[in-house]
Amino acid sequence: MRIAYQGEIGAYSEEAARAVFPNGKVVPLPTFDAVFEAIAEGSVDRGVVPIENSLHGSVHANYDLLREHEVHIIAELNLRIRHHLMAPAGATLESVQRVHSHPQALGQCREFLRTQLPKAKLVPSYDTAGAAKDVAGLGGTQDAAIASSSAVLEYGLSTLAAGIESNHLNFTRFLALTAGRSNLAMTDLPEQETEALRERWKTSILYAQRENIPGGLFKSLAVFALREIDLFKIESRPLVGSPGKYIFYLDLAGHVAEEPVRLALRHLEEVASYVQVLGSYPLGETIN
Amino acid sequence: MRIAYQGEIGAYSEEAARAVFPNGKVVPLPTFDAVFEAIAEGSVDRGVVPIENSLHGSVHANYDLLREHEVHIIAELNLRIRHHLMAPAGATLESVQRVHSHPQALGQCREFLRTQLPKAKLVPSYDTAGAAKDVAGLGGTQDAAIASSSAVLEYGLSTLAAGIESNHLNFTRFLALTAGRSNLAMTDLPEQETEALRERWKTSILYAQRENIPGGLFKSLAVFALREIDLFKIESRPLVGSPGKYIFYLDLAGHVAEEPVRLALRHLEEVASYVQVLGSYPLGETIN
Repeated sequence: MRIAYQGEIGAYSEEAARAVFPNGKVVPLPTFDAVFEAIAEGSVDRGVVPIENSLHGSVHANYDLLREHEVHIIAELNLRIRHHLMAPAGATLESVQRVHSHPQALGQCREFLRTQLPKAKLVPSYDTAGAAKDVAGLGGTQDAAIASSSAVLEYGLSTLAAGIESNHLNFTRFLALTAGRSNLAMTDLPEQETEALRERWKTSILYAQRENIPGGLFKSLAVFALREIDLFKIESRPLVGSPGKYIFYLDLAGHVAEEPVRLALRHLEEVASYVQVLGSYPLGETIN
Repeated sequence: MRIAYQGEIGAYSEEAARAVFPNGKVVPLPTFDAVFEAIAEGSVDRGVVPIENSLHGSVHANYDLLREHEVHIIAELNLRIRHHLMAPAGATLESVQRVHSHPQALGQCREFLRTQLPKAKLVPSYDTAGAAKDVAGLGGTQDAAIASSSAVLEYGLSTLAAGIESNHLNFTRFLALTAGRSNLAMTDLPEQETEALRERWKTSILYAQRENIPGGLFKSLAVFALREIDLFKIESRPLVGSPGKYIFYLDLAGHVAEEPVRLALRHLEEVASYVQVLGSYPLGETIN
């Protein structure tokens, strides 16, 4: 099975892809657009993309791609983003004079760099895995990179310091996607009890409020509250260029094949101008 | 009046700071932490920070800093992020061989670079304004930077191409902050009619749901719906390390000095374990 992700070999997205699909063959692609296109066209079987980070928020660009492409969510994963300092064999903290990484990763390791490598020059790069690749190419003991543990293995580097990020509560939620739209008529109920569905499954939807309904947001949430369906996530996103218009992202407890969820979504269509089911999938693991 | 922002001279945050405070003296600081500390300590009078972007979502890190520091919001601004290609005088699209910028800006101009400068080498840098500074320092006609229009002026460069971002609906919302916490007992009602308050003012709050209240989110939104207070933004954020616990960001129509808003916030305290008013401020302009 071929699993697409955005980034270089050794990127955090590759770690996520391998965690979700341990037996898959990972396929790095240059952009998120390319990942969504490859899934929709069937040139890969699955794709894994980041959708929100605990420090940087929702990746709206990937929500947009979920709207635009014929794909749906089949799994999720929370991955702790652990940054490591790595360099070719023989390097030590004393020998390192330059540290290469993506500006965001350099920023997330600011405290470590300030105290342990105060004289090192910080060299921005396109991505963390690319920095590891560059450092491996340069050789020598003066250049180090900040990247993932899989980059250490991929580029044959040695770890000089592990888990050097200032904030250890840095998690990224990834979604696993496959071709085809999920829809309300979906009847392939998994072989479990309905109660277990509510506890073990999550459904992600997107919707737009119908205009000129007073208290529209409140009414749209009532369709779930009235059926005792819990929510994991609610986020409004203003539609730029359309003042007063919003798209909502909602994650709810349960599966679209379940009667109350299905009824709630039918009810939602009465107060929303647009509803898209992004997929029903098992509640994801957190990898620390 | 001294206005702090994060970044180099010529950064987008500086544009935002100058737009909100045309007569202020801008003070660049290296980190967001430094900006919040400077405001809280009073070493600057105001600060301007990004809080959400139309492509990249909410800046959770700045919401965290709003929680941690004794500051409150006094204004907001939506700034369109327009990227320009700039180089020292004499350069042309034909002469440019390297394009320097922050990886995010390079990515946002991918289409332009692919079609207009297919042979140029892309050089990542720490920030857009820093790239402009570097290019000005290098001189010559082979190096160009992607940055803001204020970077063109600041570093004496010429614009080779304006508005080169692929997605023109790229807006960042900035908040203007000053020292001291906003609070429910606040009584400095602006000198306007109450109705105008509802139309022209916005209040931002943070709250945490009380545990073990069934339908807690729905009840917390009911306190506003029951008083016909419109919401501009609702976002849940899972508290990493505390499964099932959430912080909510809410922007509502009105001023905390208004009776219905004050009553709604009192009511919210019955269903929330923690409520923080981040500030009441006039509805912001959008700068295209």
